[in-house]
Amino acid sequence: MSRRKKLYEGKAKILYEGPEPGTLVQHFKDDATAFNNKKQAVLEGKGVLNNRISEHIMENLNRIGVPTHFIRRLNMREQLVREVEIIPLEVVVRNVAAGSIAQRFGLNEGEPLPRAIVEFYYKDDALGDPLVSEEHIAAFNWASPQDVDDMIALALRVNDFLSGLFTGAGIRLVDFKLEFGRIYDQNDMTRIILADEISPDSCRLWDMTSGEKMDKDRFRRDLGNVTEAYAEVARRLGIMKETGNGTGDEAI
Amino acid sequence: MSRRKKLYEGKAKILYEGPEPGTLVQHFKDDATAFNNKKQAVLEGKGVLNNRISEHIMENLNRIGVPTHFIRRLNMREQLVREVEIIPLEVVVRNVAAGSIAQRFGLNEGEPLPRAIVEFYYKDDALGDPLVSEEHIAAFNWASPQDVDDMIALALRVNDFLSGLFTGAGIRLVDFKLEFGRIYDQNDMTRIILADEISPDSCRLWDMTSGEKMDKDRFRRDLGNVTEAYAEVARRLGIMKETGNGTGDEAI
Ligand SMILES: Nc1ncnc2c1ncn2[C@@H]1O[C@H](COP(=O)(O)OP(=O)(O)OP(=O)(O)O)[C@@H](O)[C@H]1O
Ligand SMILES: Nc1ncnc2c1ncn2[C@@H]1O[C@H](COP(=O)(O)OP(=O)(O)OP(=O)(O)O)[C@@H](O)[C@H]1O
Ligand SMILES: [Mg+2]
Ligand SMILES: [Mg+2]
Repeated sequence: MSRRKKLYEGKAKILYEGPEPGTLVQHFKDDATAFNNKKQAVLEGKGVLNNRISEHIMENLNRIGVPTHFIRRLNMREQLVREVEIIPLEVVVRNVAAGSIAQRFGLNEGEPLPRAIVEFYYKDDALGDPLVSEEHIAAFNWASPQDVDDMIALALRVNDFLSGLFTGAGIRLVDFKLEFGRIYDQNDMTRIILADEISPDSCRLWDMTSGEKMDKDRFRRDLGNVTEAYAEVARRLGIMKETGNGTGDEAI
Repeated sequence: MSRRKKLYEGKAKILYEGPEPGTLVQHFKDDATAFNNKKQAVLEGKGVLNNRISEHIMENLNRIGVPTHFIRRLNMREQLVREVEIIPLEVVVRNVAAGSIAQRFGLNEGEPLPRAIVEFYYKDDALGDPLVSEEHIAAFNWASPQDVDDMIALALRVNDFLSGLFTGAGIRLVDFKLEFGRIYDQNDMTRIILADEISPDSCRLWDMTSGEKMDKDRFRRDLGNVTEAYAEVARRLGIMKETGNGTGDEAI
């Protein structure tokens, strides 16, 4: 394992060269960062939980015909994925006002939005991941208008699926962030697929009855019991049964 | 004149009830504000200049078939306009990186953009006029998708016209801000027309050869000679001949 080539080490994940061309190994670390790296911590067991939660969601998305990079889980912290050319945009879908949209438009956190809103942010830490419009995306050629249309359509399908999945788990899906990438087929035609991860690191998830946060905001706002909340999400989704409380690393 | 009903007093202009229903008198003040009112000053003669410059531009836009609120100038500081229902968006067209887009995307001021970029900002001083995407505009119902398409098409026509006009005056059109409004015709059909003003208060204008700023940035950045620069813009556009240096108020 130590002989694999490390291609990229990010804040929460490491990418290694995969066993076959066009594949990568996505390794989930326990590191947590927020506020553009100003806040950092190690949350023991987070990587294991996110690997399992993202697997569960991506697998089910593949099943309903939303193309994703996920191929299969390799071990407790790693999954095999298709290598893509990442589109440098964070695609955020929001159902309820929280975080930056509440600030931007003076909305109360928890206020339902008039409808699901799809936003794009330019992925650039140095610039603070600024909000962009489709006009910026086209002018700076970050993605084609067709790519943007595809991403919006896929993001809305993911929102519908996740809304159902989390409703069934007694969880309110407030918002989430997606990343997409391009793959090239035999005829060099390009196709957009879902990449990166979907986990409590990239979603806002509130308990349906108590309103309690079950996501990375627990870390951002120092609410404590971060990994415990992630484990509870996994438990309610019916995964992680074999790892006890879900936070252990013992099976690696 | 003092018996007219004042409908609104803004930072740079006052709106009075017009002589006929559906009309307003737009009065240009000498007040200048910047950075969301944090910086304030009175620039003697600015109102007169902006009234004349906006008249000149709007009149010519009407002539080429871009519908505007402008009816006719009434005196040195006032013009008669059609009353509209203002769409709460500032529509910004940019040809060259400057101001907030340079900051947002880490571009050098003066860098030509890959193409003209049309941006929308939500008109709300308390929120600091945040950038919005078409998705936000639709979700919060600030304007319909048809309105947005109409505004973009009109904004690009205005950009073409102004680019020509200012090129002929040895001035580089860096960017400008427009406001649009809705009017209702006999059949209660709605139509979008250009409202507010087009002046050195709402444009970035750089001398073509020296690069010197001839717009409100002179005020924002304490460069001095603000009114003199506005008067030079008027002079180069071939207006204000009858008022000497163009800054006098004597004819009111
Ligand atoms: N299938 C894939 N092919 C190529 N790159 C991918 C794929 N899936 C995810 N990535 C990229 O791998 C990286 C994952 O690492 P991580 O999430 O830790 O990044 P990061 O440094 O946190 O950056 P950010 O927080 O801005 O996403 C991201 O840059 C992501 O865009
Ligand atoms: N034809 C019109 N009918 C109705 N309102 C108009 C028309 N043209 C302009 N307005 C509005 O009149 C006001 C002009 O005043 P002024 O420009 O001083 O406003 P403001 O307080 O400066 O606000 P802002 O700087 O955000 O535009 C603006 O609110 C503008 O939207
Ligand atoms: Mg990431
Ligand atoms: Mg104004």
